[in-house]
Amino acid sequence: MSGLIQPDLDLAASMFEALSQATRRGRGIVRDSYGPGEQAAHTIVRSVADVIGLEVAVDAIGNLTMTLPGRDRGARRILMGSHLDSVPQGGNFDGAAGVVAGLSIVAGLRKAGVVPPCDVAVMGIRAEESAWFDIAYLGSGGAFGLLDPACLSIRRSDNGRTLESTLIEQGFDPRAIRERRRLLDPASIRAYLELHIEQGPTLVEKRLPAAVVTGIRGCKRFRNARCTGEYAHSGAVARPYRHDAVAATVSFLHHMESVWVREEAAGADLVLTAGELFTDPALHGPSKIAGDTRFVLDLRSLSDATMEAVADEARTAAARIGGEYRVSMELGGTSDSPAAIMNGQLRSRLSGLLERPFEMASGAGHDAAVFATQGIPTAMVFVRNDHGSHNADEAMSIEDFGVGARALMGLLMDFPF
Amino acid sequence: MSGLIQPDLDLAASMFEALSQATRRGRGIVRDSYGPGEQAAHTIVRSVADVIGLEVAVDAIGNLTMTLPGRDRGARRILMGSHLDSVPQGGNFDGAAGVVAGLSIVAGLRKAGVVPPCDVAVMGIRAEESAWFDIAYLGSGGAFGLLDPACLSIRRSDNGRTLESTLIEQGFDPRAIRERRRLLDPASIRAYLELHIEQGPTLVEKRLPAAVVTGIRGCKRFRNARCTGEYAHSGAVARPYRHDAVAATVSFLHHMESVWVREEAAGADLVLTAGELFTDPALHGPSKIAGDTRFVLDLRSLSDATMEAVADEARTAAARIGGEYRVSMELGGTSDSPAAIMNGQLRSRLSGLLERPFEMASGAGHDAAVFATQGIPTAMVFVRNDHGSHNADEAMSIEDFGVGARALMGLLMDFPF
Repeated sequence: MSGLIQPDLDLAASMFEALSQATRRGRGIVRDSYGPGEQAAHTIVRSVADVIGLEVAVDAIGNLTMTLPGRDRGARRILMGSHLDSVPQGGNFDGAAGVVAGLSIVAGLRKAGVVPPCDVAVMGIRAEESAWFDIAYLGSGGAFGLLDPACLSIRRSDNGRTLESTLIEQGFDPRAIRERRRLLDPASIRAYLELHIEQGPTLVEKRLPAAVVTGIRGCKRFRNARCTGEYAHSGAVARPYRHDAVAATVSFLHHMESVWVREEAAGADLVLTAGELFTDPALHGPSKIAGDTRFVLDLRSLSDATMEAVADEARTAAARIGGEYRVSMELGGTSDSPAAIMNGQLRSRLSGLLERPFEMASGAGHDAAVFATQGIPTAMVFVRNDHGSHNADEAMSIEDFGVGARALMGLLMDFPF
Repeated sequence: MSGLIQPDLDLAASMFEALSQATRRGRGIVRDSYGPGEQAAHTIVRSVADVIGLEVAVDAIGNLTMTLPGRDRGARRILMGSHLDSVPQGGNFDGAAGVVAGLSIVAGLRKAGVVPPCDVAVMGIRAEESAWFDIAYLGSGGAFGLLDPACLSIRRSDNGRTLESTLIEQGFDPRAIRERRRLLDPASIRAYLELHIEQGPTLVEKRLPAAVVTGIRGCKRFRNARCTGEYAHSGAVARPYRHDAVAATVSFLHHMESVWVREEAAGADLVLTAGELFTDPALHGPSKIAGDTRFVLDLRSLSDATMEAVADEARTAAARIGGEYRVSMELGGTSDSPAAIMNGQLRSRLSGLLERPFEMASGAGHDAAVFATQGIPTAMVFVRNDHGSHNADEAMSIEDFGVGARALMGLLMDFPF
């Protein structure tokens, strides 16, 4: 029977087109968290839910839930979804693809007249991106009452308005966050399923349309690392007398790359990035030894223990290399998010539904991580996407999207628990 | 006899005090090239020359020459001097110490009634620092007709006025530069002697008051090196698929440090500095792999051949490492100034006049380099100075200054040619 029941890919294609038309600003997509761009996406998605005939609800902080009622309304439900916001000048698929997938699957079920054993709901989650309010997972974290109420004072990066006043302006209720109110009960959720474009090049390089995600890497980030030496004339100071912040930083980062290579060779999951690195433009100069650098060191792994061990190694190396180069190297504190492992049973079932099974880690964070850390069985499907994400050039074909959506639908039709 | 004839250190101390009072702006010294700060220094120096009773002349571009007439007015003369400008918020001694040394020596000769066999003149040279007009040696280069007339269009870094209009405003004649007029005939100069503070920490570290300079390192600078990769999500791209500009730049600079260590071990004179290094603040981010870096690589040596060889090695390494990291690493062109070797006879004579002889290279450029490249026998004495130069904390004692000035005076009293 399930072979005849398909996600509605025509509906999906028309939704992507509508989203693009409504939220394209110049080359890129702007669906600003809790702003008019995100709201436009919610309006489109909600109107599709109305056409399909789903039950629609919006929670106190604006998350949209669109439910296809099941036979047993009291049974734990299955959620599908993703977020509807984007980074500034982002692409059309990051986030939205997961919501469109859920609706195309539910539309397929409805069209085939299937009434699932439990409710199947699609969530359009708010504000996953940290680009606007400098905090990720506002929508999913808020739904589970996980947010620190202090986040209400965070100001939007573009217009400077606080999250609190923004929520009020949009007709939502910041008290839900202030009181850490739980809007979603983990015990009522059987599973959370999310389709998302891959944000790296792995599937393009491997010529595969889709993959099953093993887990979402945690992140341990030295956000404010700095090296302090002494400014001096580049020609006039011999090597033993230098306090060269650039030379020390180069030596440190080079060492950390060798740690990465070593960990990889030992089979550990790890990525390591220094994405910001700079001397002080007010003080540096072409004929000066640099007295300062600032940099970020971003560690990610499926294993919290690996991140901890590599961070320890970084601290030890910073002290040792600082001494060697007669500078002070202070990595500072880390901001941490734990790794989130996907449900093994759902993973293997999904892999079995792919023509060419392939599993990979997600390096980027997703709402699925929040659901997984609430103890909810969670699974993710990645769809091939060229040019990475968070830019105007995201490129996902509807065929590849169909491969991922069909796998999720197959899982739903024969759910293991 | 020469034991009784001494540089006038009281005069020197009072000149340093007058210069400090006239040109201190906040913590630091501001003697802006062809501006009021430099002019204030010229006025002070010139008034001292008048008191001593020297012949004073100012050339078409503002260089000041103060001459103690010798017995044979037609004989080739000996010049002493240095520049009177400073960098913004510089110190009181860089440059000025050489002019003060010359005047304190000439004052000592005059006080002792010595009439030297040839004219001995002190030069207050204009605009040695490149901080104001982005070109070094304007005064000495211009005196020998060496400047590219295009330099007249260079705008002062602070007020945006061209060198040409600035010269006119100050009452000087830009046509001398436009016509590459030679204001100073190398054939008329027996020798050029310059006292200067050391700009590095070597004499402080070695607890020596003064040193004889072997030569002035040339400089070969890759001013606009850049590495271009691809921006991507820091968590989502595995190592083999990255185009990480920071990782490639770190690998390159780390390699160049190993080249430096190797050259030093082989006995070569070399210093190597990357004093500016930065990702693009408009595009970088803590969770992004960096797609761009810019940096400067500054090579200096007493040997032009060493600089050439290390620059070749840098180009080869940039191509190789760019390939390894799947980025484009373009070092761009170099700006070059050749090394200038000091006169061997004058060097050894000066060394013999120091209680604790010590020779060292000058890593910074000095007007002496211009005189040396004109084939004029040139010598330099370095005086110990704490905290480096080009900053408000330059610290030279009058005792150490006296050690250097006495060596120069000793050389003058028993000149070898």
